[in-house]
Amino acid sequence: MKILFLSGPNINLIGRREKGIYGETTYEDMQSKIASLLSKEGIRCDFFQSNHEGAIVDKIQQSANDADGIVINPGAYTHTSIAIRDAILGTEVPVVEVHMSNVYSRENFRKSSMIEDVVVGKICGFGWHSYCLGALALKNFREGR
Amino acid sequence: MKILFLSGPNINLIGRREKGIYGETTYEDMQSKIASLLSKEGIRCDFFQSNHEGAIVDKIQQSANDADGIVINPGAYTHTSIAIRDAILGTEVPVVEVHMSNVYSRENFRKSSMIEDVVVGKICGFGWHSYCLGALALKNFREGR
Amino acid sequence: MKILFLSGPNINLIGRREKGIYGETTYEDMQSKIASLLSKEGIRCDFFQSNHEGAIVDKIQQSANDADGIVINPGAYTHTSIAIRDAILGTEVPVVEVHMSNVYSRENFRKSSMIEDVVVGKICGFGWHSYCLGALALKNFREGR
Amino acid sequence: MKILFLSGPNINLIGRREKGIYGETTYEDMQSKIASLLSKEGIRCDFFQSNHEGAIVDKIQQSANDADGIVINPGAYTHTSIAIRDAILGTEVPVVEVHMSNVYSRENFRKSSMIEDVVVGKICGFGWHSYCLGALALKNFREGR
Amino acid sequence: MKILFLSGPNINLIGRREKGIYGETTYEDMQSKIASLLSKEGIRCDFFQSNHEGAIVDKIQQSANDADGIVINPGAYTHTSIAIRDAILGTEVPVVEVHMSNVYSRENFRKSSMIEDVVVGKICGFGWHSYCLGALALKNFREGR
Amino acid sequence: MKILFLSGPNINLIGRREKGIYGETTYEDMQSKIASLLSKEGIRCDFFQSNHEGAIVDKIQQSANDADGIVINPGAYTHTSIAIRDAILGTEVPVVEVHMSNVYSRENFRKSSMIEDVVVGKICGFGWHSYCLGALALKNFREGR
Amino acid sequence: MKILFLSGPNINLIGRREKGIYGETTYEDMQSKIASLLSKEGIRCDFFQSNHEGAIVDKIQQSANDADGIVINPGAYTHTSIAIRDAILGTEVPVVEVHMSNVYSRENFRKSSMIEDVVVGKICGFGWHSYCLGALALKNFREGR
Amino acid sequence: MKILFLSGPNINLIGRREKGIYGETTYEDMQSKIASLLSKEGIRCDFFQSNHEGAIVDKIQQSANDADGIVINPGAYTHTSIAIRDAILGTEVPVVEVHMSNVYSRENFRKSSMIEDVVVGKICGFGWHSYCLGALALKNFREGR
Amino acid sequence: MKILFLSGPNINLIGRREKGIYGETTYEDMQSKIASLLSKEGIRCDFFQSNHEGAIVDKIQQSANDADGIVINPGAYTHTSIAIRDAILGTEVPVVEVHMSNVYSRENFRKSSMIEDVVVGKICGFGWHSYCLGALALKNFREGR
Amino acid sequence: MKILFLSGPNINLIGRREKGIYGETTYEDMQSKIASLLSKEGIRCDFFQSNHEGAIVDKIQQSANDADGIVINPGAYTHTSIAIRDAILGTEVPVVEVHMSNVYSRENFRKSSMIEDVVVGKICGFGWHSYCLGALALKNFREGR
Amino acid sequence: MKILFLSGPNINLIGRREKGIYGETTYEDMQSKIASLLSKEGIRCDFFQSNHEGAIVDKIQQSANDADGIVINPGAYTHTSIAIRDAILGTEVPVVEVHMSNVYSRENFRKSSMIEDVVVGKICGFGWHSYCLGALALKNFREGR
Amino acid sequence: MKILFLSGPNINLIGRREKGIYGETTYEDMQSKIASLLSKEGIRCDFFQSNHEGAIVDKIQQSANDADGIVINPGAYTHTSIAIRDAILGTEVPVVEVHMSNVYSRENFRKSSMIEDVVVGKICGFGWHSYCLGALALKNFREGR
Repeated sequence: MKILFLSGPNINLIGRREKGIYGETTYEDMQSKIASLLSKEGIRCDFFQSNHEGAIVDKIQQSANDADGIVINPGAYTHTSIAIRDAILGTEVPVVEVHMSNVYSRENFRKSSMIEDVVVGKICGFGWHSYCLGALALKNFREGR
Repeated sequence: MKILFLSGPNINLIGRREKGIYGETTYEDMQSKIASLLSKEGIRCDFFQSNHEGAIVDKIQQSANDADGIVINPGAYTHTSIAIRDAILGTEVPVVEVHMSNVYSRENFRKSSMIEDVVVGKICGFGWHSYCLGALALKNFREGR
Repeated sequence: MKILFLSGPNINLIGRREKGIYGETTYEDMQSKIASLLSKEGIRCDFFQSNHEGAIVDKIQQSANDADGIVINPGAYTHTSIAIRDAILGTEVPVVEVHMSNVYSRENFRKSSMIEDVVVGKICGFGWHSYCLGALALKNFREGR
Repeated sequence: MKILFLSGPNINLIGRREKGIYGETTYEDMQSKIASLLSKEGIRCDFFQSNHEGAIVDKIQQSANDADGIVINPGAYTHTSIAIRDAILGTEVPVVEVHMSNVYSRENFRKSSMIEDVVVGKICGFGWHSYCLGALALKNFREGR
Repeated sequence: MKILFLSGPNINLIGRREKGIYGETTYEDMQSKIASLLSKEGIRCDFFQSNHEGAIVDKIQQSANDADGIVINPGAYTHTSIAIRDAILGTEVPVVEVHMSNVYSRENFRKSSMIEDVVVGKICGFGWHSYCLGALALKNFREGR
Repeated sequence: MKILFLSGPNINLIGRREKGIYGETTYEDMQSKIASLLSKEGIRCDFFQSNHEGAIVDKIQQSANDADGIVINPGAYTHTSIAIRDAILGTEVPVVEVHMSNVYSRENFRKSSMIEDVVVGKICGFGWHSYCLGALALKNFREGR
Repeated sequence: MKILFLSGPNINLIGRREKGIYGETTYEDMQSKIASLLSKEGIRCDFFQSNHEGAIVDKIQQSANDADGIVINPGAYTHTSIAIRDAILGTEVPVVEVHMSNVYSRENFRKSSMIEDVVVGKICGFGWHSYCLGALALKNFREGR
Repeated sequence: MKILFLSGPNINLIGRREKGIYGETTYEDMQSKIASLLSKEGIRCDFFQSNHEGAIVDKIQQSANDADGIVINPGAYTHTSIAIRDAILGTEVPVVEVHMSNVYSRENFRKSSMIEDVVVGKICGFGWHSYCLGALALKNFREGR
Repeated sequence: MKILFLSGPNINLIGRREKGIYGETTYEDMQSKIASLLSKEGIRCDFFQSNHEGAIVDKIQQSANDADGIVINPGAYTHTSIAIRDAILGTEVPVVEVHMSNVYSRENFRKSSMIEDVVVGKICGFGWHSYCLGALALKNFREGR
Repeated sequence: MKILFLSGPNINLIGRREKGIYGETTYEDMQSKIASLLSKEGIRCDFFQSNHEGAIVDKIQQSANDADGIVINPGAYTHTSIAIRDAILGTEVPVVEVHMSNVYSRENFRKSSMIEDVVVGKICGFGWHSYCLGALALKNFREGR
Repeated sequence: MKILFLSGPNINLIGRREKGIYGETTYEDMQSKIASLLSKEGIRCDFFQSNHEGAIVDKIQQSANDADGIVINPGAYTHTSIAIRDAILGTEVPVVEVHMSNVYSRENFRKSSMIEDVVVGKICGFGWHSYCLGALALKNFREGR
Repeated sequence: MKILFLSGPNINLIGRREKGIYGETTYEDMQSKIASLLSKEGIRCDFFQSNHEGAIVDKIQQSANDADGIVINPGAYTHTSIAIRDAILGTEVPVVEVHMSNVYSRENFRKSSMIEDVVVGKICGFGWHSYCLGALALKNFREGR
């Protein structure tokens, strides 16, 4: 089973900026931890990060033949991107939305999501572990357990 | 490690009502599945369901000495109960909010939560597996991994 | 044919409080009048009143095997209870919402109802006669006339 | 006792359009059914339908000497007509508002009514039987039972 | 100088309905009083009342060659009629909006006007005298004093 | 193929009023231009204009057997008429909504339409040519091209 | 009969500033014109202008024994001053609200008035003549004609 | 004189939870302090706390013959309970609303109260002393001083 | 202990205006009653009333060295004055907000307060006794009881 | 005459995704159909599609010398892109906004457009034919017919 | 070149109150610093501060002949004063709005300004240096550089 | 000292488009003027403009080691880009927001800014001089004057 982990703008900076919110694990460390933890579950991991909304849309369109599931953390684009929403609607790969921080205890504008009603489910608040839980959820979802 | 699973009103009916949304697993089946899956992770499970808001508040107050974490699905009270919110603020046990359905693709009033900003994190959309993911998240949270 | 008449908080006080709005018929008198008028239509009546939201939810859940229809006046819980709404969604017994006063000519918050879109129909403004009209409507509804 | 049944725009089309909502009873059939059922209660029926807001206002003004009560289903004008509201305020004949469908489970704009706070009461959701219940309510209202 | 006095729905009922708001002067009395008072100012009066929005629009369109000014009290249509607004925009005759009651101390929906920003000015609160003040204002306006 | 062109209040005045918005083509000229241009496409044209909302509803109800499509410009009633919306829902003739001016660059209240979600499509901003485009769209729609 | 004309902030500047809106009549000219026109009606005029909200409140409190009526143009304080509203509620002298410009065709914030529901009536749009019409309205009001 | 002190959900936890907001006085200490301070004023104290909305409604209904006044701190139910509001409307005992913290400097949802307009008055921000001030206010109110 | 009692616009009129709301005690009587009642508690009283927002701001700025506490009833300025709010933020003297009437059972705009979240607490609904309760609250606050 | 057809994100997927909404014509087919149909009208077609907002802005800026008109379907960026709006304001080429689906019968957020008030006109609901109608409208617009 | 620096309520307290926001420079120090820095640019400085809205309006009216530009920090009146707005509209002297703190990172109500759309420009967030930048901007503006 | 001047979409067009708003200075001229004026203050200038949101985010991330301050005019992205906001939060370089036009006297949507509360300060309304003032403010800010 192969899962694509999509991350939106500024997530490449975690561990360097706003450590009070995101902790000290860098984006590179996070990839290792996730890949290692999930390999035990038989899940292969593919990571992609971009600051460009269009690039994320491109990636979702191309992933159709490439992944068994998508774990997406659109970062700032969560709250505004109808284009990403439409790309998710246009793919048949199941998608789970994740956030590292608990977006509900931050600024008001972080509480809305343009994609939350077109994904399988949503997970937030558990740091890099949110990504892992998203992958486990997808695995369970595909196995129809 | 011991986790308390709190469920709000009408969740005792799942598997019997609105099967299009909640599937055919009954509340009793769900308890077995969760307990069995989590016992492999070294987690003991305690379940409580009530249709009474006050009873849920009572339970949270009493659980302080009794559980290492709470996975709560307040059902209908999610959207209106400030009393449950205050009870969570008054306990030191970490709490995770879960929902079986993806509340964001249902009626508008199900999108708001009175507790989402005072819990560790929130998980929704994965049926009874949401409870399991909540427990796994709590375990990871306590181990500070 | 047997109909359950459910009444929410403070309705046990009618005839004693706010007579300008509710008249001088007490809750006990009202039960006699309704039972007497409806017995002529071949309808048996079962009455239940509680100040506890949870108790009303419990009652709706239990009534499934017990009544051919429910006439419900949730009183103050009309405007806030998603739990009662979910209980109605979870039962297969047809439900009619009634109010004694014309809720639309009172405070603004009395104009909204959490259940009005999941019941068969709604009747308000005719004092205790609202309950009777609700029962007649249910009879007609079941006879598919 | 004589009751005027006023129906607003497009109600002449029921039974022909949108059968999923209004059933297959035509406007003509409906008149027969209502008149027949109510004649047993000693109620004579007078029917009027128009697509013109002004014509409905005219009719209400003229009915003062002509009817013991009005059962009105203003159709689309329910939600916008202050003129009909003012006409009701200007007559001394008691008025009951009825709707065939449960307006609360349809589009949002159908939930508001410009007249609901100036009528005796409101009934909706019971097809053509809503008109009958309205007439029975008026009879009970005038008898001050 | 000739002025057209246009009155909207239910204004034909004043003096008969809601005397607490409109006093006891009937629509016929009012015409006499206004004509008599304004004849001293050299103003001839033409009165028109209708319950039909379309009829008022027709009248405004036709009046272009017929009147030196319009004093309009659109009654209930004040708050909803864009058609009357457009008719006023389409005529070159100056228009003054008047109301007999102080619309600002009544229901909320009476506070908005669809025409108030396309008339010369607005006068309310002085009973039938509002019409006279409107005519005097038009006279002053045309004399450019 | 025969198309009914329905125009709402004050559209009979174009070419005479507000020339900055509507140009100098009169309603009569417009009819000739449209009929002439569309006859080349094999489309016969039927025109109807009224200032009365009820008359437009009447016309839509009657057109069912009379036209292959309706091009409607409800003018001021666009923004308020639920009655016209219901009439469109009640007919099986396909309907296209058109406006001569670009309603989106005018007053705010002109941006909403009560019918836009129950028509095939919407066209605005091209003067009398909007009507022609509406007819061409209907032709293409019926041919299922 | 003696009338107090109260004017709020910046009205002392008319005729000098924003001539497109207020014309070229200065505040001094305006006083002469009003006094002269109203002396024919047997009305004596007292003028007061201030840029200070508190000073206007002081003046209304003191005027109780001094004037038979108040014509007030609170200028900018119209939209925000609850203190002036309370002062009007606290006096028994009848008050009419006037504005020189048609406040409804200007900025949105000029459309609300804190006093419009506690005065006898409201007049706007007729330049300095608004003050005169206000005085005539007060005369008619006191004569109870 | 006997006063009933009603406290809503989680108030039994003060002194143990959220000490930054509620201080270190426990619910038991608070009762002693209040009773001792008020006995000097000739006031006897009766305390009741519950996490159940229905239980508070029951208590208010029963207190009619039992107390000369009620000091109520409905806690979380302040903001949502129409049932408690209706119970207060249904009793003739005077009621004062109190809060220990200054609810206006906390979360937004704590600023609204469902009962504030049906009580004699409201006091907040003075810790347990708020209860005492409420009792003193009731004493003064009954003495009509 | 010395307390400054600040009163805003029109409060000098109590006992003379709107007796239904404020009773018949005049502002002068009120001062005597308060001073007399509080002298027993060892509190000296200083009173200041003004219709000018700026004068109240001046007074708060100057009081820093002059009073041990401020009891303020800003009257109409309660709802609009950010300047008074800023002055309170700029002084170190503790402030209590009081109102004589229950502002929550009056007009909607009286329910908001610009200062309620920057004072120690708030008291309303007890006539002139509200001022006394405010003083007692301040005494208790300073004694840290 | 040469027209640029600009399409926003995910429009490259039509015919493959969401066929219920967009039909089975692919983006490539659509280009052929449009080019073929319009070549009969003497219109040459230039197509550009991108998932990147910035790329669409770049294209509009460059097209000034390159096209006689732009038919734009900004897809998801319709509802959020002020940058595209500004680019349209910055070019002198006339622009028509088109949509394939009737955006008014879909999700609420699709009803708003950031560009609708700065284009010549707007067309929606006619599948790929919307593009053709847009081109015909531009042709008519330039010929000033 | 001479510039008037107008400051609203409580700005006389800076350096003494809320030092976290405003720093430790007093109002007197600030005047020296500004005057000294700007004298190098050939700008003479005139300072005026008042807690009275009316006094600021008076000052703006009088300054017309006295200053080449106004740098205004209306403090709390920024958010509510239409009177100051009107005074600015009534003068021909160019005005720049400044704030010492970044008003956008404080309370919500500080984000709105009643004057921001009638001044040349707006500067905030740079302490007393905001005043200097305002003066430099005015100099550049007058030189039309 | 080195400052980065970041400009968002369409700013490369100034001097060519919408000259009424932006004047006739082109983007190239503007760079020369700014660089020349600031070189006198010892400030070196680095300019970057892009129509791509992602490119601006990339640039901010990279600038951390490259600039002593950023003057940013995000153009259309000001109002919608949470990604730029997050990038600013993630850098330690001080940022000032500038706009050439007075955004507060234009369309409503230009009044909001997604970054205004996370920058040092904001300057708007002074054409290309806004950029210079931003640089001077940064210089003063870093010198802690």
